[in-house]
This record gives sequence, structure tokens and C-alpha cells, in this order.
Amino acid sequence: MKAVVLESKQILTLRDFPIEETLGPRDVRVAIRVVGICGSDVHYYQHGAIGPFVVREPMILGHEAAGEVIETGADVAHLKAGDRVCMEPGYPENPGRASHEGMYNLDPSIRFWATPPVHGCLRPEVVHPADFTYKLPDTVSFEEGAMVEPLAVGMHAAAKARIRPGDVALVTGAGPIGLLTALAAQAAGCSHVFITDVVPEKLELAAKLGSVTPIDVRKEPVRERILEATGGWGVDCVFESSGNSVVFPDILASVAPGGCLVLVGMPQEPVPFDIVAAQVKEVRVEHVFRYAHVFQRAVALMGSGQLDVKPLITDTFAFEDSVAAFDFASAMPPASVKAQIQL
Amino acid sequence: MKAVVLESKQILTLRDFPIEETLGPRDVRVAIRVVGICGSDVHYYQHGAIGPFVVREPMILGHEAAGEVIETGADVAHLKAGDRVCMEPGYPENPGRASHEGMYNLDPSIRFWATPPVHGCLRPEVVHPADFTYKLPDTVSFEEGAMVEPLAVGMHAAAKARIRPGDVALVTGAGPIGLLTALAAQAAGCSHVFITDVVPEKLELAAKLGSVTPIDVRKEPVRERILEATGGWGVDCVFESSGNSVVFPDILASVAPGGCLVLVGMPQEPVPFDIVAAQVKEVRVEHVFRYAHVFQRAVALMGSGQLDVKPLITDTFAFEDSVAAFDFASAMPPASVKAQIQL
Amino acid sequence: MKAVVLESKQILTLRDFPIEETLGPRDVRVAIRVVGICGSDVHYYQHGAIGPFVVREPMILGHEAAGEVIETGADVAHLKAGDRVCMEPGYPENPGRASHEGMYNLDPSIRFWATPPVHGCLRPEVVHPADFTYKLPDTVSFEEGAMVEPLAVGMHAAAKARIRPGDVALVTGAGPIGLLTALAAQAAGCSHVFITDVVPEKLELAAKLGSVTPIDVRKEPVRERILEATGGWGVDCVFESSGNSVVFPDILASVAPGGCLVLVGMPQEPVPFDIVAAQVKEVRVEHVFRYAHVFQRAVALMGSGQLDVKPLITDTFAFEDSVAAFDFASAMPPASVKAQIQL
Amino acid sequence: MKAVVLESKQILTLRDFPIEETLGPRDVRVAIRVVGICGSDVHYYQHGAIGPFVVREPMILGHEAAGEVIETGADVAHLKAGDRVCMEPGYPENPGRASHEGMYNLDPSIRFWATPPVHGCLRPEVVHPADFTYKLPDTVSFEEGAMVEPLAVGMHAAAKARIRPGDVALVTGAGPIGLLTALAAQAAGCSHVFITDVVPEKLELAAKLGSVTPIDVRKEPVRERILEATGGWGVDCVFESSGNSVVFPDILASVAPGGCLVLVGMPQEPVPFDIVAAQVKEVRVEHVFRYAHVFQRAVALMGSGQLDVKPLITDTFAFEDSVAAFDFASAMPPASVKAQIQL
Repeated sequence: MKAVVLESKQILTLRDFPIEETLGPRDVRVAIRVVGICGSDVHYYQHGAIGPFVVREPMILGHEAAGEVIETGADVAHLKAGDRVCMEPGYPENPGRASHEGMYNLDPSIRFWATPPVHGCLRPEVVHPADFTYKLPDTVSFEEGAMVEPLAVGMHAAAKARIRPGDVALVTGAGPIGLLTALAAQAAGCSHVFITDVVPEKLELAAKLGSVTPIDVRKEPVRERILEATGGWGVDCVFESSGNSVVFPDILASVAPGGCLVLVGMPQEPVPFDIVAAQVKEVRVEHVFRYAHVFQRAVALMGSGQLDVKPLITDTFAFEDSVAAFDFASAMPPASVKAQIQL
Repeated sequence: MKAVVLESKQILTLRDFPIEETLGPRDVRVAIRVVGICGSDVHYYQHGAIGPFVVREPMILGHEAAGEVIETGADVAHLKAGDRVCMEPGYPENPGRASHEGMYNLDPSIRFWATPPVHGCLRPEVVHPADFTYKLPDTVSFEEGAMVEPLAVGMHAAAKARIRPGDVALVTGAGPIGLLTALAAQAAGCSHVFITDVVPEKLELAAKLGSVTPIDVRKEPVRERILEATGGWGVDCVFESSGNSVVFPDILASVAPGGCLVLVGMPQEPVPFDIVAAQVKEVRVEHVFRYAHVFQRAVALMGSGQLDVKPLITDTFAFEDSVAAFDFASAMPPASVKAQIQL
Repeated sequence: MKAVVLESKQILTLRDFPIEETLGPRDVRVAIRVVGICGSDVHYYQHGAIGPFVVREPMILGHEAAGEVIETGADVAHLKAGDRVCMEPGYPENPGRASHEGMYNLDPSIRFWATPPVHGCLRPEVVHPADFTYKLPDTVSFEEGAMVEPLAVGMHAAAKARIRPGDVALVTGAGPIGLLTALAAQAAGCSHVFITDVVPEKLELAAKLGSVTPIDVRKEPVRERILEATGGWGVDCVFESSGNSVVFPDILASVAPGGCLVLVGMPQEPVPFDIVAAQVKEVRVEHVFRYAHVFQRAVALMGSGQLDVKPLITDTFAFEDSVAAFDFASAMPPASVKAQIQL
Repeated sequence: MKAVVLESKQILTLRDFPIEETLGPRDVRVAIRVVGICGSDVHYYQHGAIGPFVVREPMILGHEAAGEVIETGADVAHLKAGDRVCMEPGYPENPGRASHEGMYNLDPSIRFWATPPVHGCLRPEVVHPADFTYKLPDTVSFEEGAMVEPLAVGMHAAAKARIRPGDVALVTGAGPIGLLTALAAQAAGCSHVFITDVVPEKLELAAKLGSVTPIDVRKEPVRERILEATGGWGVDCVFESSGNSVVFPDILASVAPGGCLVLVGMPQEPVPFDIVAAQVKEVRVEHVFRYAHVFQRAVALMGSGQLDVKPLITDTFAFEDSVAAFDFASAMPPASVKAQIQL
């Protein structure tokens, strides 16, 4: 079948690619309809590797997908051909202790689309475990369905924060994950979200995502804005979504006593962390790795209208223009958030 | 000053009532603007007592209030004259171990408006601790401010449930507390709420409160509806808000494995509880008593527009018509939810 | 092989029983050394059924086992022939949503030894999933290893209670599960345990299990004893281990504000539950079903000497006397707690 | 009265010091019997300051105290003259939002013994709030009572870790706080504790504190030891008690998936923290500041014999030798842990 294949660093082709997948009794076969392009896809394209994961053989890209079930395994009860679905790209092949305890995202046997050597989903069909395939309600389009994967990152961060209804949050970084986290935090109970960045277009877009106050850190003092708005108490949760080490010296300045810091962004080097500053407020710091147990929840919140990702789907490409789509995503204009490919 | 005084069972008067209150250094004096009528006020009016709390001397009614600060104690920093506020009617007078541990609502020294022998707030002015007085943003009217107290019950229930974003809930009973709990549950992260009752008008109103499915228990099987809608999983949280013992035989039938049951309603007699049914799902049962730490959170969610109580304010009376207001509330028509008195 | 077979209600034989088990790649084959007799085994023996689980064909009894690994599947890395082990009798055959979320004990596909139609372990050999087989340290005997299963019930209850170090607990019922829960609660951080019963021999034994105060409910007022000992605060956790509905009218009387009630015993009928009494203290009620994730933890606490089950192993029988052992266990003398069979 | 007065940096005298304290209705007056010397006392003695807290006027030292009640305020019910007690040295003077929420240790109005400008307790008598004064059972000596304060640090860390029974812990640093944390972790449910240091005498002492494995980091690879002992899983909790930034590059190497890191030690400068290493295990990091709600719990665990601090009380001085005691503590021999002064 035709697929978007990363041949090697910076060489991407849309070409026939032989891939044979057997349908197991607990699997479904899905015709892919929409695939979003993630920063990690672009990173593999540009650099041929992310940390220890190196692309050594041609690999199909893509892991943000929605599609339609075309065949179901013998033991699959909750899905049938024709169902519109989205898919969780990672699942444990040999569930071990981490999986048994409910943390399958931390299982060493995890198999994840478009993480070498596992092929991704930018191709007409995939076979996938039914347990990690989620039905979309009629009110959720394939385009929105393909947003569930990146939204899941924000949802998982929001779940880890254990938001209490009415909490106030700060999101640092208004990239796709920061914006989706701002949406997830509100859906999860936050009454208000401050979001920081230095790109005016991103802050403008953020301001439209509900009860959100954008702060341009080059122009305004974050801590003062937040303390004033919260009567001196601070924010209950901070979601660090930039991965930029420059945020760390001040990351705790506006946290409330007993507050929470969720680290979503992935700085490449160790960051300087002021333990005493965290101690005097007894900050709880949560670290997240991808997500677990949130796809169904994200779909439900979209389906009921409580969480609207549509403003973040900014650019759409046809499957035959996939290489152009990746080139576009590699030099994303500031007002663009998510580019998707339609099959 | 003039006040709404319950002289004794079924004898309510609006009359001059001498009440002298000193302003302590951490107190504020508030001019009352709006007071909601609660079922408990009506119960004292009709029966002269609630359980062990008996009205033995004339007592001013009312505990759901919003108003305007007119004077502040010497040590009050976060409020000033002219601030629009709502007030938490209960606070501990001699904080003991429960208060130290953050559960001031369970402190034996709690002092609560319109719970004998403490006077309520249906009068032009009250003195109140500033720590239990909360500023209303411009976007929240006095009428909405006076809804914070009953909403706080639902908010506290939602907080106790520890809702995970995307949870599905069932609320049993569509009275004022059930409806407010349905709103609070959604604001706290629920993607969908089922609500049960037998009064068509209440169910119709409930259906307008967001992602809510009303179920008339006389006409539809609750468990089947819920299991079908949730792919056989069930609801993650049940909020029992009816206080009616008839709901208990089936209360666990639609709960998901590992789900939660929050008991908000107060049945007068012990109810039959099927422990084994709760064990096979390892249900967590939370009990709530009034609320703690939620006023500010409720105000914030109202202020940001994520929670709208206005559809529930159905009837308004002038202060001089207070006795008529109580008579109305004593025989509330089915389409009415909350009656308020304006001063 | 020879096995202890429940032919039908009240007919138990030790006889050859053909049973063929294939060793899968993630399985181990274990030579059984010690099997404890549980109340549920006795119940099947006497009544041929427990609730909906009816013995319709001859079934091997026994689910509390320790033994020695004699063969390992191809993919088993953490165990080898010669390892001394105990085994968790229940595991999910087709892990579904409950398992993925870490609650495999609630998975509908659970397969549990000696629960019809699944055979138990009173036989020389079993094949078992390696993931549910736990190595015993040298300091833990086979006899203690066979106590891990009933101890796991108490450990799971203690884990659900989320004991804070220094909590004070009340255990109602000094049967095997009550006594093991008293041990588990202490190992989990309780500074003191009150335990109630009406059998002097059981209370005497309980008094020797650490910091434990036995209370004979026919002779002493429980609430008064506890309130006096805790300065009027009450116990932080109650573990109901009797399954007897007579305890319920007073079960909340000695709970502290914000305390926890864990329901371990399984009353056959719904019990009367006083919701208002639970509300005024905001009691959290946890329900437990068997256990999950605790075998390894129980083994570790035994191995380090922090939890000693040896005083509870009161009676030992040879394999050839298995029927006599069951007859003994069916009419257990008051000073006996656990009878075991050695193979 | 006579008191141990820090006149200024490095000038300590035992002399008459006028101090007048009024007994409020909720206070007790306590005759001090034993006071432990803490590292912070020594630090003020040697440096005249700790961070922003500078000794500008003569200040009485000491905050680890046990004594005997000699007078009680009018409203004190739970204590009487003659009671043996220990005292929590910090309490909020004007409880604000942090206190209301149960975090009085984070309240800006906290008043803490021997933190300038508040006098400490190295004097014959103190007046103290009864709510922060805890009765010692007969089985707990004054010497042990004076250990409750430093033990409270370890207890609070253990409580924050939310230890599940049977967890395995690593404590980094075998100073007084590390050793007390190792005791607290075991009392709170840990089955085993690894403890690291470079001082052989401290490691030898640690090895005697229960189920503890000492590791000399100069001689043994910590990660390998731990992974081997835990079947490759790692420790569930790490308690960083050294405050030494050299531990941070490897602090996460032996943590289990979903594990917890509690930061107790206070490094003076920001430390390098590897966020990605924490993310791939979704480590939860808790920060602690002193303690809250644990004195009573620590006393209870000591009283019941589950936690024995006596091996850590290594050196005792008479009140008249207080200056010599501080000089000893300023150059503590490696086998000494806690020096106390008896009044």
C-alpha cells in the first residue's frame, strides 16, 4: 500500500510500501481517514532520531489518527465495521508489572507508532488492538478524532494535576501541547488559565480558548499579574509545556501554597531546580510520559461539546501532498497550530 | 433593624429586631442585598426544628446571602467598603483538631446562620469574619452571589468525588441540590450527567443544564439506559441528592468498577445498603456535610462563565414580601427551583 | 494426580483426578507444598455453593498455596526451577478495561482457584502465570507463604484505607481475616488497633498481635473505650471484618471526623446504614473485593520481619488426611485460626 | 529566668534573661525538662543567620522540647498540671487561607521557636498553645519526647510519600534526619529501607534500625544493589535527606515506575534536575517544609513501641553545660546523632 515513508534523515517519500498485518481475535482493521502531524514526526524527518530512538530503516510516519473500522477480530464486541474511531498509538505487547498496576504507558514492552522500529499510520490501513481503539460519536469529526492523540497529552497532564474544581492554572508555552493543555485544564475544572509565550499570534489564539489570559513574558511580569489576579494566593497548578529551560528559574514564583507543577515539556538537558523554593510551598511536582486511560475521556468531552479543539486545526493537506505537508510543518507559520493530512 | 423572624413554629414576621454586633479586627460589616430561601429555612418555618436543632426563641432566618461591604475591621486587607461579596454562613468559633486538619465544616464549634440559636441573615446588615467573606467579580450579580451557598453543596460533593476529566455521572434527584450538583459535576470535569426524578418539569429544566440526560424513573429503566450509553461500563460517579430511601436498592446498579458514590441527600432513617454489591465493584462511598473551601472556587467558576446558575433562580420577592416568599417556597410549584428575597 | 476433590455438596474425597495443564511461555509449573483451608473452601464443602457460584461437577478445592517451581515457560525471566514461591489464585484471562486501569480483581474475565468451574490447588502440581507467582525469601517458610493469600485480604483493606502513619484503627471481628487485618493495619502504619469480638479465645490471641486492645462487645462499651483512649477523637479507620449485620447500627459511633470505614466482611443481606451519622463526620467508606497488587508487598513485610503470621497457623495436617482436615475446619475450635495441609 | 542566649554570631551564654509570658485561655505553661540540639540551632550559633533569618538581637535557642505542664488556661480541657508533654515549636498566629486548608506549616503568620525574632525553649518555662502541646504516654520518656520534633520531619516526609504497605524506600544521607526518616518510613509501611552515606559510623548505626541496608556510595553502586534486590523494579520512594547537590544526577536511577521522590534536605543552590528521567517513570516529587499534623502520630508510634528513637539519643548534657553542649554539637563526632540538654 501507499505510505508516507521516512527513508532516512530528511528523505521523505510517499510510495508503495509492503506491509502485511494479520488481524488477531482482539484486533480491528481500520481505514485511516485523517492523520495529524506532530512535532515528533517533524523531528524524525529533520534529524532522523529522537534521543536514543534512531531511524535505521525506512519507517512509516504518523501517530495521530482517526478512521473507520473495516474488519473486526473474532473476539471484538464493542466495535463493528463502519464505526468511526480514533486509535491510541501505544500499547504494551507483553504487559508486565507496570501495566498490571495501571501504568501501561510506562511498560517496557510498549509498542508505539512511528517510534523506531515501529511503523506509523500514514497509510490507508492499519491493524490495531480493539482495546486501544475508541468509537467517535456522531458529533466528533475525523479531523477532531485525529486531535485526540495530542489532546490526550494535555488530558493526562490535567488528570495528574488532580485539579479541584475552580482551580486556577498557569500554562507555560502556547505551542500545540500548551494550547491543548489549556483546554484540558478548563474541561477538568479550572476556572481560569494563564498562558505564557513570546509569540503574539499564539497568545492571540490562546485568548480565544475560553477563560484564558495570555501573558507575553517579554512585556509583562508573570508573577505580579498572577498574584494580583488571585489575591496574592497564586495559581493552584502550573503546566510546563514549553520544554524550554529558561522558564525554570521562575517556574515556582507564582504557585500557591500546596500547589502542583506538572512537567509536560521535555527539556533536553537537566534544568536548574530550586528545591527550597518548592519546599516553602510544599509543591507537588508531577511528571507525565505520554498518557494512559484518557482517550475515551477526551472523546467524551469533545462529544459533549465541553472541549472544542476545532480552532486548533489550522491547516489541511491531501494524502498525495504529504511531503509538502511535512515541509510546511517543518517551518510552521506562527499562526498555525496543527496540520493534518486527509486520506 | 428589620428582620425576618421565626417567632416559633409556623409564625414568621418581618419586624424590628434588636441585634447588636461588634466589628472585630478580622470582621467585615455587610449590607445584605439578596437572600435565597433554602429548604432548611422552610423546614424550620413549618416544623420549628430540624432533628436536634429546635427553635426555642425568636430567630432570624436566612443563610444564602450576597451583599456589599460597608465597613472593615482593622486587620482586614483583602476587602474594602464597596466590595460586592457573598458569605459562607458557617465558620468555627474555636478551631479545634478538625479545623487544624482542614475540615472546619466538621468542627464542633461551628457557628452557622439560622441554625438555632444562631441568627440568620435576612436583615439589612450582618457582621461576618472577613476570612469567610468572598469578593464577587463584576460578572457575577448579587442574585448569582446568593446562589453560591447552595451551589457550594454541589461543588463540595463534586470535589469529594475526585472526578477525573471525562467521567460520566448520575445524579439522583432533580431538586435544587441535584440540579446544582449536575452543574458542579460538569464544571468539575464530567463529560456527561444523567439525572433521575419523577417530576417532568424538573427533568425538563435539568435537560437544559449542559450535557445532561434526564431520566424519569417511572418511565425508563435507569441501569439499561446508562449501560447502553457507556458501553456497559457504567457511571464513574453517582451523586445521591434525593435523600429518598427508595433509591438505595438500585443505587449501585449502574456504577462502574472502581466508581464512586457521593451521598448528599440526608435520609431521616437508616437505609438498606447492599455491601456485597458495592464490594464486587470496590465502590468508594463519600459522605458530605455542608462544604469547606469551595466558596471561592464556586465564585470563580461562575465569574469565568463555566458554570451558570441563572436558569435556577426562578422566583424573586421584595424584602417587605418576605413572609409571602416563605409561603410560596413552602408550596413550591414544580417548575420553580430557587426563590430569592431582595433587600 | 491425587487431588482433594469436592464431588458434590458434603462429599469430599482424596483421589486420583485427571488434569492436564499445558505450560505456556509465561507460565510456571509449581509443586505444591502447603495449602491453607479457607472459610470459603469449607463453605463449598458444606453447602456446595457460595451465592451464584454452584459446584456442578467435581472440583478440586484449595486456593491458599505455597510451593516450589519445577518448570518455567520460555519467556519467564524472574523465576527458575527450585524457587520457593506463593501464588495469587486469581488473574484475568482476557484483560479488559478494569484490568487496564489496574483493577484486575474486578475484571469480569477473572479466573480464580476453587471458584466453580475452576479447579483449586489441593494437588501435587499446578501450572500458573509467572506474573502471579511470587518468590519467597529464605526467611519465609512454605507455611507462611501459604498465609499470603488470606493476609492479602487484610493488606488490600489496609491499602484501601490509605492509612496515615500513626492512625488508630478498629477491627470488628477477630476471625482469621480480622486478625490478619489487625496485623496488616499495624504494618501499614497504625500505631494501635482495637479489635472486637465475643469469643474470649480469639480476643486473647488478638491481644498478642502487637499494639492491640481486644474488646469483648458483650462486656465493654466500645465507643466509650475508644473515645477515652483517643482523647475524644475516635479511630481513624474501621475495618469491618465480621460480615455480621449486628455491628452496623454502631459501626460509625467511634469513627473520627474525616475517618474511613473499610468493609471487608460480606453480609448476605443489605444492612441498615445511617447515612446522616456518616455525613456529620464525612466518613469515607471503601469496599474491597479480594485484593490486587499486594502479594509481593505481603511477602516483603513477612520477609523483613515486620509482619509475623506464625501465631495464626494453629493446625497442620498431612495431605493424606485432607478430608479430616476439612472436617476439623468445618467445626473449628475457638482457639484455632488457620488449618493447613502439607503435601 | 536562666536561658541559653545567642547574643550574636558565635557568642552563646547561659544567663538570666527577662521574658514575660501571659497565659491565654487556650495556653499551657510548661516546665521544660529536655531540649535537643538541632543542626539549625548550631547553624545560628556558628553563622548568626539561616538564609533570610538573621539574629539581630539576643535570642534564646532551642526548639526540640519535652516537659511538664504546670498551669493551664481557662479553656484547656485535654491537658492538666502534671501532664508530661512535648510541644510543636511552630503554629500560626493569624491563621489564613493556608491554615484553613490544613497547611498551617505554610501559613505566612507562622511563629516558630528559635527562628528570629522568636525566642526558643532552652529555658525553665514556656507558655505554649495547648492545641500544639501533646501528652506523652507513660512509656515515652522526656528524652524521647524531645525527639518528636526531629522525628516529625521524617514522619511528615513519610506521610507525603503516601507509602503503600510493603513499599521499598531509599534514604539518601544518614544524618539525624535521614536516620529518623528511615525509622518513620518503616513505621509507615515500608518493608525495607536502603540508606546511603559515606560515613561508616553512620551506616553502621543505620543498619541497626530495623530492616535497613546501608550502602556506602564510595564503595558500592547504589542502582545495581537496589535493582538486584527488587527484581529490577526499583524503590517505590526515595527520601532525599542529605541536602547535598551531588546526589541529584543519580537520584532517579533506582526509582520504580510511578515512584515517589520526597525532597527533605535543603540544598542552598538550585540543583540540576533531569526532567526526562523523571518523566519516563512518571515520578511524583513531593517537597516538605517542616511538618504538620504529625506530632500526635509520632508520639503514638513511639508509645506503642513501633518506632524506637532511643538508639539515636547519643549524648546528654546538663543545663549548666549548655554552652559546652553546643560546642560539642558544633563538632559532632561521626558516631553521635543527637545531643540533648536536661533541665
